[in-house]
Amino acid sequence: MLRTAAVVGAGLIGTSVALALSSRGVTVYLSDREPMAALTASALGAGHAEDPPGPVDVAVLAVPPADIAATLAAVQSRGLAHAYTDVASVKARALAEIEESGCDTGSYLGGHPMAGGERSGPLAARADLFEGRVWALVPTRDTSDDTWRTVRELVTLVGATPLVLDAAGHDRAVALVSHAPHLVASLMAARLEHAAEAEVGMAGQGVRDVTRVAAGDPHLWREILAANASSVADVLTELATDLDEAVAALRALAADDDGTASVALTALLARGTAGHGRLPHKRGTPRGGYVTVSVLVGDQPGELARLFTDVSAAGVNIEDVFIDHAPGQITGMVELLVTAENAGRLTRSLRVPSTVMAR
Amino acid sequence: MLRTAAVVGAGLIGTSVALALSSRGVTVYLSDREPMAALTASALGAGHAEDPPGPVDVAVLAVPPADIAATLAAVQSRGLAHAYTDVASVKARALAEIEESGCDTGSYLGGHPMAGGERSGPLAARADLFEGRVWALVPTRDTSDDTWRTVRELVTLVGATPLVLDAAGHDRAVALVSHAPHLVASLMAARLEHAAEAEVGMAGQGVRDVTRVAAGDPHLWREILAANASSVADVLTELATDLDEAVAALRALAADDDGTASVALTALLARGTAGHGRLPHKRGTPRGGYVTVSVLVGDQPGELARLFTDVSAAGVNIEDVFIDHAPGQITGMVELLVTAENAGRLTRSLRVPSTVMAR
Repeated sequence: MLRTAAVVGAGLIGTSVALALSSRGVTVYLSDREPMAALTASALGAGHAEDPPGPVDVAVLAVPPADIAATLAAVQSRGLAHAYTDVASVKARALAEIEESGCDTGSYLGGHPMAGGERSGPLAARADLFEGRVWALVPTRDTSDDTWRTVRELVTLVGATPLVLDAAGHDRAVALVSHAPHLVASLMAARLEHAAEAEVGMAGQGVRDVTRVAAGDPHLWREILAANASSVADVLTELATDLDEAVAALRALAADDDGTASVALTALLARGTAGHGRLPHKRGTPRGGYVTVSVLVGDQPGELARLFTDVSAAGVNIEDVFIDHAPGQITGMVELLVTAENAGRLTRSLRVPSTVMAR
Repeated sequence: MLRTAAVVGAGLIGTSVALALSSRGVTVYLSDREPMAALTASALGAGHAEDPPGPVDVAVLAVPPADIAATLAAVQSRGLAHAYTDVASVKARALAEIEESGCDTGSYLGGHPMAGGERSGPLAARADLFEGRVWALVPTRDTSDDTWRTVRELVTLVGATPLVLDAAGHDRAVALVSHAPHLVASLMAARLEHAAEAEVGMAGQGVRDVTRVAAGDPHLWREILAANASSVADVLTELATDLDEAVAALRALAADDDGTASVALTALLARGTAGHGRLPHKRGTPRGGYVTVSVLVGDQPGELARLFTDVSAAGVNIEDVFIDHAPGQITGMVELLVTAENAGRLTRSLRVPSTVMAR
């Protein structure tokens, strides 16, 4: 059973791991190149900002990908822990460096929790950051059974679901579902940089969603993309082929020379719809079971409280909430995602007009 | 003053215009190729599903872009109205057809409300669909002062903000902020079509947002893209140049041949961040003024009601709400967007732990 842990690196992920483990009764020892970061994390209740008195059960290296191998060698040489893992978002390069550096690869099992966000630092940490999230596990050729048991226990203890992948497979997956989408969002957002005021004034929710992640720190994302450059380039090369086909189809249609252009364009759009359909629903449940109940509320303190008091009185559980504000609009449309069987009960108990839509 | 209107086409937009005008006391006459659609809209309170007894003040043509010119010629020949407008999302081609078809261009002023969504049909209509939205107005060379006055009154009466553009400028703007982002989302989503289960299992909110609009109907979107093919192709051609540069930089980094690759990649990402910053904030207010208060709630009926009752007791207005569910997770993180000066008051009045983050 996991009783003691060391967290090296008190950023968002490291501090969140420490908070989660501490809240489950594990004794955690924190360190960071910046002593203030470890002290801040400790003040938040994440653990002790000091060296452990002896080897801990597991050490979590929450340092940048480029520093994993050197950090692992250093902490192994001083016998910090019986088992070691990390949280780096790209795995193949660090694993190669670890194997070349003469580290003990039996006591190491790579990890990558699919959680985080645009925020950083210990103050952004949350004990529940990993609850219900996937946590990728990437072994070496030598990872021992004891190391497997310890790191798996860590992952399940913080509420995450382990998913075992090899390093190359992991890096291809994050290229596809995280790194390439980020760069695509950036490329689309870059088109807006020199747009006229009237043009951006016509922007709606669609372009906001497509470009949202482009707000991330360019230097941080350049590092992430550089560490996974080959896999990201592979995804984008395939995308570029489709993009060229789309542009060619549009040019043909603009010249009133349809031929196969309409068919090709529809096929590209249909593949997008199919691909979008592959994404798991937020709650891991089929979309069909839910409907949206739309309610118009005023923009005053208490309006949402009145609405949710009515919802509570109806005894209906809300799966998700979305508030649709128009720019400068006084009122807002609140959309409540509920199971189909609850929708009627909910609308009857609301004191304001509502409409029900299938998702 | 606007007293009577005819709406031709009882889909989402036409019925919403009719509902909005009816709610403001205008007498509305509805028609549709499908009589059931007009009767449905009428049953919703959108107006009379019959021909007006004489010329109305304004007729709104809510028919597909390809049908605008023929519909305008037909309704003008029977003297349906004193002024005419439409709601088509692409303008240059329809305007050219109108000018070629011998329609009266003095009584016509083109329009395009920036509202709608993935839903369609009269049952999805809302009287408030246009409140606070931009409504583009695209005149002919001959649009009369009377037509200007009437159509502007229509737009402001339904709560929208008029934005005057020429046809080519309008079509370039929607290519940039709507049509190209849609196709980019489709191209990214198409990469997921044949992904392994483990790969899509690692998807988070980022790729969901980037690809959300790709769920739209491929046939409808092929029509929209085809009607604005040249402008969309121009945006995507520029994007393709940047994409090629990004792929080249990634290939260089993958080969450990940095040179200018890191600098080029960072510059592309920084242009994306700058472009994203050009989008108006949801409420038309600077982002800096708001902070996010994060609260953990259980997944039971009444939890949200308790939270919003506390919020109400604090007298704090919530600008936006976001519920972050992890797959299979019992609890959820609720993020409340409030003004910075209200954050302290809010957190003190909540009975559950909360954290405050700058946006």
